[in-house]
Amino acid sequence: MAGAPDFSILSSGNATAVKAGDVIFREGDAADEMYVIKTGTVEIRMGNRVLEKLGENTIFGEMALIDNSRRSADAVAVTDATIIPVTEKQFLWMVSQTPFFALKVMRVLAQRLRAANTAI
Amino acid sequence: MAGAPDFSILSSGNATAVKAGDVIFREGDAADEMYVIKTGTVEIRMGNRVLEKLGENTIFGEMALIDNSRRSADAVAVTDATIIPVTEKQFLWMVSQTPFFALKVMRVLAQRLRAANTAI
Repeated sequence: MAGAPDFSILSSGNATAVKAGDVIFREGDAADEMYVIKTGTVEIRMGNRVLEKLGENTIFGEMALIDNSRRSADAVAVTDATIIPVTEKQFLWMVSQTPFFALKVMRVLAQRLRAANTAI
Repeated sequence: MAGAPDFSILSSGNATAVKAGDVIFREGDAADEMYVIKTGTVEIRMGNRVLEKLGENTIFGEMALIDNSRRSADAVAVTDATIIPVTEKQFLWMVSQTPFFALKVMRVLAQRLRAANTAI
């Protein structure tokens, strides 16, 4: 996504390798972490609809951490990818210690909301 | 909106009275503040579509502060209302000083995004 905030600052965690086609999480799953994409591409899907196609240094899965809810969409690797899990505790720590991180997360949400409102 | 974060903490600023039917801002307007609703009801509209109906102690107009963009929708008072402007400077100060405020704003955006994605 052009102009998406860069979250490479979070890329130092334990990377997890996923294969093209792997489902990272499904709509309705319980959630306790978000992810940073280190390499590869991940799609966020709701049913047959692709909500977003995400590349390196972008985040996904943050919504469930923010409002303690279940996954609202599926996340599927569309290429082999490396993703870095960020726990709720790490996320809250980042928000409290680095206001710029909080603003970046807000910016991601605002961009997604603009896109969704335009698509309705 | 049920379960919306409460922003009454911001209700100490200079209140502005608006009348039922007043347009507070229009899609495409330049933006340098967000608002907290102290009393009354405000609708966020895109064309003829009502994106959201907001009551006391909720916020609107925050997206333009987050990503320095123009207004993405209209805001119209549907009852006589009192709204409190929050400048970009105040907003950034709140984000940096009170992580709980940042999380509340994220929660508002996440709720709106879930609703929008479901409506597409």
